[in-house]
Amino acid sequence: MHSVSGYVAQHKERFLEELFQGLRIPSVSSNSKGAAAMYQAADFFKGQLILAGADSATVMETEGWPVVFGQKQVGDDRPTVLVYGHYDVQPPEPLDEWKSPPFEPEVREHKIFARGADDDKGQLFMHLKALEYMVAEKCLPCNIKFLIEGEEEMGSPSLKAFCKQHQELLLADLILVSDTALYSLKQPTLTTGLRGLAYFELHVWGPQRDLHSGLYGGAVANPVNELAHILSQLKDREGRIRIPGFYECIQEPDLDELQQLRQLPFDEAAFAKGIGVPALAGEPGYSVVEQLGIRPSLDVNGIWGGYTGEGAKTILPARAMAKLSLRLVPGQEPVQVEELLRSYLHQIAAPGVAWELKALHGGNAYVVPWQGKGVQAAVRAMEQVLGVSPLPYHSGGSIPVIADFEEVLGQKAVLLGFGLESDAIHAPNENFPLENFYKGIETVAWFYHYYTLKQ
Amino acid sequence: MHSVSGYVAQHKERFLEELFQGLRIPSVSSNSKGAAAMYQAADFFKGQLILAGADSATVMETEGWPVVFGQKQVGDDRPTVLVYGHYDVQPPEPLDEWKSPPFEPEVREHKIFARGADDDKGQLFMHLKALEYMVAEKCLPCNIKFLIEGEEEMGSPSLKAFCKQHQELLLADLILVSDTALYSLKQPTLTTGLRGLAYFELHVWGPQRDLHSGLYGGAVANPVNELAHILSQLKDREGRIRIPGFYECIQEPDLDELQQLRQLPFDEAAFAKGIGVPALAGEPGYSVVEQLGIRPSLDVNGIWGGYTGEGAKTILPARAMAKLSLRLVPGQEPVQVEELLRSYLHQIAAPGVAWELKALHGGNAYVVPWQGKGVQAAVRAMEQVLGVSPLPYHSGGSIPVIADFEEVLGQKAVLLGFGLESDAIHAPNENFPLENFYKGIETVAWFYHYYTLKQ
Repeated sequence: MHSVSGYVAQHKERFLEELFQGLRIPSVSSNSKGAAAMYQAADFFKGQLILAGADSATVMETEGWPVVFGQKQVGDDRPTVLVYGHYDVQPPEPLDEWKSPPFEPEVREHKIFARGADDDKGQLFMHLKALEYMVAEKCLPCNIKFLIEGEEEMGSPSLKAFCKQHQELLLADLILVSDTALYSLKQPTLTTGLRGLAYFELHVWGPQRDLHSGLYGGAVANPVNELAHILSQLKDREGRIRIPGFYECIQEPDLDELQQLRQLPFDEAAFAKGIGVPALAGEPGYSVVEQLGIRPSLDVNGIWGGYTGEGAKTILPARAMAKLSLRLVPGQEPVQVEELLRSYLHQIAAPGVAWELKALHGGNAYVVPWQGKGVQAAVRAMEQVLGVSPLPYHSGGSIPVIADFEEVLGQKAVLLGFGLESDAIHAPNENFPLENFYKGIETVAWFYHYYTLKQ
Repeated sequence: MHSVSGYVAQHKERFLEELFQGLRIPSVSSNSKGAAAMYQAADFFKGQLILAGADSATVMETEGWPVVFGQKQVGDDRPTVLVYGHYDVQPPEPLDEWKSPPFEPEVREHKIFARGADDDKGQLFMHLKALEYMVAEKCLPCNIKFLIEGEEEMGSPSLKAFCKQHQELLLADLILVSDTALYSLKQPTLTTGLRGLAYFELHVWGPQRDLHSGLYGGAVANPVNELAHILSQLKDREGRIRIPGFYECIQEPDLDELQQLRQLPFDEAAFAKGIGVPALAGEPGYSVVEQLGIRPSLDVNGIWGGYTGEGAKTILPARAMAKLSLRLVPGQEPVQVEELLRSYLHQIAAPGVAWELKALHGGNAYVVPWQGKGVQAAVRAMEQVLGVSPLPYHSGGSIPVIADFEEVLGQKAVLLGFGLESDAIHAPNENFPLENFYKGIETVAWFYHYYTLKQ
């Protein structure tokens, strides 16, 4: 095991070149016309599994984009770890804000820039290369399975059914996922909580066609004004969500957990500076770490209506649309949140317009116990490679499939993420620091060592 | 003069074919790349002026799109009427809602369908064909000048300077404009009031890049949510505008005028049905005719922010934008409204976001006295051709240049519009009924007759 850092140093250029091949494939899962790229990406990761030394790897159909499954068996008496990752990426738009094209990876300032560099192709590659090392050096201490899906950025609509259908194939003692971030390599964190998600489209319709804003303005309800009114009623001016009943089911985190969370030397000023805002704005009475990790949130993700081109068009638009999503915490269910939101919309929408709420996808929040065997193996691997003990962290993000795994496969997941908050995932100029990539490979290899070590 | 209806009947097919040539030119003035079409349209109307019998016609440069000027002189002792119209049109978007392409005119159900069919190429053509008739029949009783601009749909930014520069060329005793609507051919109206306009773009900026809505949501002000809040604060739930001081300068219409306005048998139920809304929504205490004609209004014309494509993208957007406009009534000035709005925005915008208000264009409201010589000539022409006396009407629309004319050229304008509310101007499937087109030609010719008749 102690040779892993040497192995990484020796092969680092090749690792990077292989990752770049994967990053060049524009596997945007929300693009329904992107089948060629999606299958190309699935085939690429199948090939990488074989290259890394897997016994077998295969592309398997689902109701949506395919899943890549591969495995390396070392002995029936050994524990089995199921590695989960995804080969799909977020849309790259707005394209004009990228300094280099999103699907032409390049290294600048010791970081890999590309859509998917962190989320999740880069992090998934850490696992492929850790496997390669352990197979090459004949030090793999357990069986490994890979489940690589293509719909994570769409909310994994087909994966739950796939897992149910292939429950036996996916049998494992632990699930290992690198699709989250740590605070820094100097003060690493291990994500032990994820928020849930409920994502909606809200459509508002007024007149049956765009109207002249002079000839009709003042007598007809305007769907954009009405949508703005609705959105303004969803949160109060301090950031509390106003949907009646929304906070009622929340399971508060226990005090021990909260104390550990509060140990993180989180720099709120640097956080604000890093995203270029003059002031942070969150729910009063909670630190940023708490606002993001243990409190729910509501954001409009997109809005559209009327004329948005150059110059002035004097219309009263026929319709308007917003995409909005809520991040949920333990105790809150997407379906229940949808019901509460729908009831509230009935209360606040104006009678002069029609509206429709469409649920796009959702998932429950997730918590993994800090004292579990998997998390403690990750703690020791990080101590070994980074020289410092990680703290627990509750991420504001969501990986809806993690909760599904627990339900369907009956196992907890360990979230061994190596991204950084500054990696700009889901945004232009997504990146992944080379050091995180290489240290991640080493840490994954050490994880297997400590996970299988006799106590 | 009595031969005009016969002349129109004899030449109606050719009139239509000539109008179609003009409608095929996509002269969208807000398209800064549309120079070819704009100059083609200007040349076309110059040619039509010569064809109709003008002594001269010329395309004249301005700071923006060119103006077409033409004239027909019958005697220095005769009064001169300046006909104003515009060859530019609104953008045709959304294109997929047109039943026939916007720049491929066709007649269906006795209506001409095309962008500009009513506003304003069709109505301008009535004047060209009335001129043709009067020149052909040698019955033109006054001098006529044509001023045809190409920036009306942008708020005529260059026309005021052009009028100042060419004040002598444009000297006239009256300005005649057909760029408005009447209630119906059975109960015609003459527009004696227009609302003013103040059109803005409001930009809101949050973080310097799109953020992941999970990793940041709950701690950072969202520019779309903040824009929605701002927009929601501009009007109360009953439709009153909340900008402090906004109503203070309004000059109330006099009671005589109001009584005449109230005589119009306006069918509010049919109005709502015609635009497909379940209920009208306007300022309490006013009829629809009053809401549209003598009360100001505020509408969002367009809104954009974040991800608006297919599916779910979980971002907290970096920015958002709305186009919004206010229709003004006598006493309100666009510049003063901008100041009031700007002060109010300082009050209501959140500290976590930056904003910018850009004034795109504006113009004052306009009122022309019912008892004036010009309006009374129009009343008699309508009685002659349509067989019924028109009522006064205050249109909700704006023709900012009309107020400019009064200021620069020192003359009132008569608004002899032949459009219908159902013509869908500024919207998909704009149309102009053939009967309105042909009756309009006759009425314009009779207008000159009554305007020059010795009392």
